[in-house]
Amino acid sequence: MKALILKELGQPLIVSDTDDPKANGGIIVDVKAAAMNHRDVWITKGMYPGIKVPIILGSDGVGLYQGKPVIINPNHNWGESEQYQSSTYHILGLPTQGTFAGKVRVDADKIRPKPEHLTMEQAAALPLGGMTAYRALMTRCQARKEDRVLISGVGGGVALFAFQFALALGCEVWVTSGSDWKIAKAEEMGAAGGLNYKTADWKSFGKQTGGFDVIIDSAGGDGFMNLVKLCNPGGRICFYGGTRGNISKLNPQIIFWKQLSIFGSTMGSDKEFNDMVDFVDRHKIVPVIDSIYTLEGGNDAFLRMEKGLQFGKIVFNIQ
Amino acid sequence: MKALILKELGQPLIVSDTDDPKANGGIIVDVKAAAMNHRDVWITKGMYPGIKVPIILGSDGVGLYQGKPVIINPNHNWGESEQYQSSTYHILGLPTQGTFAGKVRVDADKIRPKPEHLTMEQAAALPLGGMTAYRALMTRCQARKEDRVLISGVGGGVALFAFQFALALGCEVWVTSGSDWKIAKAEEMGAAGGLNYKTADWKSFGKQTGGFDVIIDSAGGDGFMNLVKLCNPGGRICFYGGTRGNISKLNPQIIFWKQLSIFGSTMGSDKEFNDMVDFVDRHKIVPVIDSIYTLEGGNDAFLRMEKGLQFGKIVFNIQ
Repeated sequence: MKALILKELGQPLIVSDTDDPKANGGIIVDVKAAAMNHRDVWITKGMYPGIKVPIILGSDGVGLYQGKPVIINPNHNWGESEQYQSSTYHILGLPTQGTFAGKVRVDADKIRPKPEHLTMEQAAALPLGGMTAYRALMTRCQARKEDRVLISGVGGGVALFAFQFALALGCEVWVTSGSDWKIAKAEEMGAAGGLNYKTADWKSFGKQTGGFDVIIDSAGGDGFMNLVKLCNPGGRICFYGGTRGNISKLNPQIIFWKQLSIFGSTMGSDKEFNDMVDFVDRHKIVPVIDSIYTLEGGNDAFLRMEKGLQFGKIVFNIQ
Repeated sequence: MKALILKELGQPLIVSDTDDPKANGGIIVDVKAAAMNHRDVWITKGMYPGIKVPIILGSDGVGLYQGKPVIINPNHNWGESEQYQSSTYHILGLPTQGTFAGKVRVDADKIRPKPEHLTMEQAAALPLGGMTAYRALMTRCQARKEDRVLISGVGGGVALFAFQFALALGCEVWVTSGSDWKIAKAEEMGAAGGLNYKTADWKSFGKQTGGFDVIIDSAGGDGFMNLVKLCNPGGRICFYGGTRGNISKLNPQIIFWKQLSIFGSTMGSDKEFNDMVDFVDRHKIVPVIDSIYTLEGGNDAFLRMEKGLQFGKIVFNIQ
């Protein structure tokens, strides 16, 4: 089969022919589309624990199994607790071979029919980002229709899913981004408005919006306290990333007086994966696709994500 | 009636005769015992919003109403939501006159029979600290029998209640303190062990204990990250104070990978007050009393709390 392979850290990815995977008690899916996550970029840079090369990256995929279109749950060994993953939890694409290839081996219980309203490319965009957003917004923050929601960094995959899911719930949703055009795109999709964090006046944003009940963040950093200040009493903030580094200057008095909850969240359980796909099916949500590449364009795709140019998911069409 | 009065910020409290309170649609309780909270000390130093002098402090009290012993719920206007207090929420002892007096005016629905297994002094120790601990441990952290629990700063009133409640649940409970003798006292009461944070080796403490599922803290500050590191996957940390100032150096990756929850919490709802008294009744919990003063010893009592010398509640016996 053809595959996009990371042979050495820091070196360009290479498309080459390689052996088909063995079923080993699982099943083989003929991959038709796959999608990128930040994780894939970080792995190529050595910024992830447990990296072994050569490896075929890719956690998101859809394809054919016994001729029928299926979507793949990227989880392995989430474990017994809904609260946290087991110590042996991992996802497709490291340490096991991922979806940026013609075929991928998965456990038989990790596929389900592709949502019918989605193309292969759209469905490929869904698994990891959708599951992560679902857990953050629905399980952790317990978002409800009456909540006013803020999504930070709206161009990213998880952020866009959280945005779309909150809209589907009927929430009033606001966004932040470092790019005015991304805010404009979100507004076209239904955002009530947005704040460019590079030129932000957080205080007047708080007044303008009336404050937030739920905030989904992936940045952390010193700016996190701005989010705390934007919270209404009883507010919940969930972060699934920390691209701006350590969180500092958190005022405990503001947090306890407003009875805030701050959640860290990553990935999602098998139940959350299934609930998320059901939710997408029920609300006919269509993932936002930024761009579609072939595996041969793999290095361009990785560069696009690394530079943060995307709005939505970067997808591979695999023939 | 006799009352302990704060006439001017920064000046000693004065015991003097003053007019009895008027019922004003509420009821008058003959106070028999009252108890101190850190809040009282902070108010005398001007470190609290909305201070008006002269004022009779005191949020905790028990006494007689129509000849029967009653315990007072210190809440006013908690409001409709269990998640957070209303904007008009306040508690006895500022801005309304408090319990360090022979009589206090409260709303009729704010008293309930004193738990029979407690003396007046023991029951007086319970309301605010017990309610705050109950909300933090039970409502916010959802502590269960199988959780390993850490209580920081175990000498304090709320910390001791959280400690006793966790023991009553059947949890394995550990403590921290800056005083070895406080740790020894907690061990006598059933703590599995303790850590002196002045000489702490947090890393070996984590190994020794096996990590924690629930942590109740009132310090915040730079040391908060030590608590995060001590958390097991799915762990919950709740803080109800921030005596060490802003929380800094919080590593988002550790928090989201371990799926941690960090809660700010203060006071409690009327429901939580009632649930807490029921819990104390059911488990026959006896609040720890550090010392008993008369109102005439008020300044000594305040100094004792200010210096952090106490282990348990500082109580006034009021005749």
